Amino acid sequence: AQAQTSVTLYGAIDTGLMYQNTTAANFSQKTPDTGTTFRYKDAGMYASTWGMKGSEDLGGGYHANFRLQGAFNSGSGAVGLPDTTGTVAVFNQVTSVGLSGPFGSVDVGRQYAAMAWALVDTDVRGAEYFGSAFTAWIGMNTVAGWLGSNTNGAVGAVYDSNAIIYKTPNFNGVTLSLEYAPGEVAGNNTAGSRESAVLQYVNGGLHLSGVYYNAHDTNLTPASPAPSGVDNNRFIQLGALYDMGSWIMSASYSNGKTKSLAPYSSDIDMYSAGLGYHFSPVFKITSGVYYLKDKNNSLNKSTSYALGAEYQLSKRTTLYGDVGRVDNKGNMNQTLSYGSPVAQGLATTAVMLGMRHTF
Amino acid sequence: AQAQTSVTLYGAIDTGLMYQNTTAANFSQKTPDTGTTFRYKDAGMYASTWGMKGSEDLGGGYHANFRLQGAFNSGSGAVGLPDTTGTVAVFNQVTSVGLSGPFGSVDVGRQYAAMAWALVDTDVRGAEYFGSAFTAWIGMNTVAGWLGSNTNGAVGAVYDSNAIIYKTPNFNGVTLSLEYAPGEVAGNNTAGSRESAVLQYVNGGLHLSGVYYNAHDTNLTPASPAPSGVDNNRFIQLGALYDMGSWIMSASYSNGKTKSLAPYSSDIDMYSAGLGYHFSPVFKITSGVYYLKDKNNSLNKSTSYALGAEYQLSKRTTLYGDVGRVDNKGNMNQTLSYGSPVAQGLATTAVMLGMRHTF
Amino acid sequence: AQAQTSVTLYGAIDTGLMYQNTTAANFSQKTPDTGTTFRYKDAGMYASTWGMKGSEDLGGGYHANFRLQGAFNSGSGAVGLPDTTGTVAVFNQVTSVGLSGPFGSVDVGRQYAAMAWALVDTDVRGAEYFGSAFTAWIGMNTVAGWLGSNTNGAVGAVYDSNAIIYKTPNFNGVTLSLEYAPGEVAGNNTAGSRESAVLQYVNGGLHLSGVYYNAHDTNLTPASPAPSGVDNNRFIQLGALYDMGSWIMSASYSNGKTKSLAPYSSDIDMYSAGLGYHFSPVFKITSGVYYLKDKNNSLNKSTSYALGAEYQLSKRTTLYGDVGRVDNKGNMNQTLSYGSPVAQGLATTAVMLGMRHTF
Repeated sequence: AQAQTSVTLYGAIDTGLMYQNTTAANFSQKTPDTGTTFRYKDAGMYASTWGMKGSEDLGGGYHANFRLQGAFNSGSGAVGLPDTTGTVAVFNQVTSVGLSGPFGSVDVGRQYAAMAWALVDTDVRGAEYFGSAFTAWIGMNTVAGWLGSNTNGAVGAVYDSNAIIYKTPNFNGVTLSLEYAPGEVAGNNTAGSRESAVLQYVNGGLHLSGVYYNAHDTNLTPASPAPSGVDNNRFIQLGALYDMGSWIMSASYSNGKTKSLAPYSSDIDMYSAGLGYHFSPVFKITSGVYYLKDKNNSLNKSTSYALGAEYQLSKRTTLYGDVGRVDNKGNMNQTLSYGSPVAQGLATTAVMLGMRHTF
Repeated sequence: AQAQTSVTLYGAIDTGLMYQNTTAANFSQKTPDTGTTFRYKDAGMYASTWGMKGSEDLGGGYHANFRLQGAFNSGSGAVGLPDTTGTVAVFNQVTSVGLSGPFGSVDVGRQYAAMAWALVDTDVRGAEYFGSAFTAWIGMNTVAGWLGSNTNGAVGAVYDSNAIIYKTPNFNGVTLSLEYAPGEVAGNNTAGSRESAVLQYVNGGLHLSGVYYNAHDTNLTPASPAPSGVDNNRFIQLGALYDMGSWIMSASYSNGKTKSLAPYSSDIDMYSAGLGYHFSPVFKITSGVYYLKDKNNSLNKSTSYALGAEYQLSKRTTLYGDVGRVDNKGNMNQTLSYGSPVAQGLATTAVMLGMRHTF
Repeated sequence: AQAQTSVTLYGAIDTGLMYQNTTAANFSQKTPDTGTTFRYKDAGMYASTWGMKGSEDLGGGYHANFRLQGAFNSGSGAVGLPDTTGTVAVFNQVTSVGLSGPFGSVDVGRQYAAMAWALVDTDVRGAEYFGSAFTAWIGMNTVAGWLGSNTNGAVGAVYDSNAIIYKTPNFNGVTLSLEYAPGEVAGNNTAGSRESAVLQYVNGGLHLSGVYYNAHDTNLTPASPAPSGVDNNRFIQLGALYDMGSWIMSASYSNGKTKSLAPYSSDIDMYSAGLGYHFSPVFKITSGVYYLKDKNNSLNKSTSYALGAEYQLSKRTTLYGDVGRVDNKGNMNQTLSYGSPVAQGLATTAVMLGMRHTF
């Protein structure tokens, strides 16, 4: 079969206004509350992004596939976070190439860690950027010392650089993703490496997921030790979502555990529950509660509540509104909206109105 | 109505050679003359740029529109200036999304401040990057302490981040643009915010404009105080241009006023006059004189004179030549060509030959 | 003739895995061996890249042409090297615009120095990123103090910023490229400038090249003196390649000479020989040997041997494998794979398996 050349240029711009009644200067803990913020807010639902993708037909059911994708701030045009603080990645989300066929698919390069898809798939709020399993997971990371200046999370990962991901074909609704990413540290093949396995089951309205993610030396805290191959970044998750047509519900349990220099070793449980209702194919309401508990210190806990409405104005344009409250105790600083740090140990309320336009 | 998907990839490369008989190392004042420069010059007419844009038909005369646009240096490929020194913005000019319809249009995100369009529309030299209302406006900014490392001007703005701009429909040639950009400073909703109103009238060959621009804490001088909401960046303009078919003429008055720590408080008047002639649809000559006067110190004044020819070789390719002279007095350092600093307080002559190719 | 608008979006993703039995932290000499590395490797054949290009028909055999092209790391999405350490260039390879016609072509802006095409054309291994005339040329640069943080090589150049390149029409197989790039140093028109002449002859299977490259003040070593116009970066090459249909062979001689502060003045000869065999239109084996000799210090010499196989899986997808050995003596640190520094003065073996997908 002759190859068909095609490049698709695509993207999304997600923008809105947000009110939040506590504010912190950054994601590090112990930053004081600087008060109420009313602001332009990029990425209310998901990142503003652009990219190119394509597929070449190799015949016999085989394809060569590529994707280049980068996030930007729709308010300033600034590039999204790189994997390493201080570097600049124009395609900071995905630069992958691979083969697919009857055997499944293999993709190599920077790409979404499979655990990210599991979080999205088993959360009624779709692991969106406001009050969801995603922002709760970010909360696990800030407790573990992540400062928000790179995508190399202390607990799990949304994106992994230098990754090889094999995904099986779909067997009666079951798919398994296996990831290995070499560490590139000379003299120690374990140092810096990451591995994960994600099992997903989708059948009718039922979605189940199980995540195992383990990484070595990716806990880039301020006082992080030199790479040694230590098993220091573990994330596990079990999640379920059931879509009954109109009603939709979800629940999940996760645990993130890091080993680092004090005070950044962490062991945090996350429990989530979600409930949503589809009023029509273009209008839905979603809600969720996300509870974080520090197993090393019972004073540290955090619960966020979020309620949102999404209305698809057209095929490519969605209007949305969200309201949320997060109750942080101890030194927890779970945020409501990704990229908008809140004061530690206080309750915070946020409201967001926005629009997401894809192309 | 069903949406039509379309993305247009577009851009321009603007390049040439320039001779200038004084040179300064940067835009700060008091840098000594280092002599004559003969150089490759990016952006003789306007920025070299690339972008994507599209429009989704929502029915009933409504559209959802987006634009992503970034400038680059055609000599090195370097990205254009960001809104904040030290950050990198791949789409440093525009990242906007909005709705248009019978009510006019609303766009949100980073975008051209409406005052930029008014400067272009009432200057025979089109506020180009060589000897125009634009380079004169840059001269107001360097006096006020702008160092050329970001787009966040001390006086007015060409681009505003996080902006919301509403533009009315055209009423018998009249349009009004209203801009508000929140400041994102916690605990002070005025700090960092910007607002502007621009009235434009176009009827036959007559173009009129009136600009009011006001911003708070956007005067990022070396000795800038912390954001407090002070009203410290004001720009007003009244301009007129008349195109008689062959002859074209323009005149404008502007004032820029900043409040900052000494010596960066400024109050500067700008007067411009322009005259041009269309020899044919593809060949024109333009000229302009731009006079800056420091109301705080009568020793500081600057007059630039520019003469240029533009020949459209084809639909997408223009050849151009410019010659200019600027007479800087006191500590003025008005440039002739954007991005090519001149020595303070001296007279400078520059000549540029170039080509602009759009795609 | 009416212009035809067209923009082509194109690119390539090149990725693989590499084993190397010595490793250095960076390209500077005297960095110790940190041991074996097994790693994800971007750019096994050539850079991962993306770009836009187009041509406007001006009539009469004339065209206006442009190209914007940037490299990225397929493992992390990071942008490629800029011309100046510390800057960010989204189109770090090419930002050029020009005219072509019966007279030949003139392109201005950042672009491949013509010497790069000569290296590719007279090396059986195509000056690829693993064991080739390119990696040997990089070896000449690291001896001269190039640190790998910008593209402004100490010896010759792959890319030149602010360049003007005129290329003659093809006269019975002969083309001549003449390059001049102004230096942009005020008060000294020689400082920072570059000039080159490259003669190429292609007739049937015979390819010949002759390169003269000379630059002033582009030797950006750690202890580099201020720009003064000194003639400090010279590269010459004579190369030949003969493709007999199945067998293909090549040979070249080069010399690179730099003047700088001690110890970075260098005078290095490079000799190469290559042999390859085409088994079919889609499968070939190539091999080469690249010998570097420091004329200032006879203890410094380096020989690399490389063997590779390339299989075109489809029109746009190539699978490849390479194995190489480099024997560095004295303070030489010639690499086998671009971007993977090896220990100085030791022998290093590397193996790479990869895939290059173009779009």
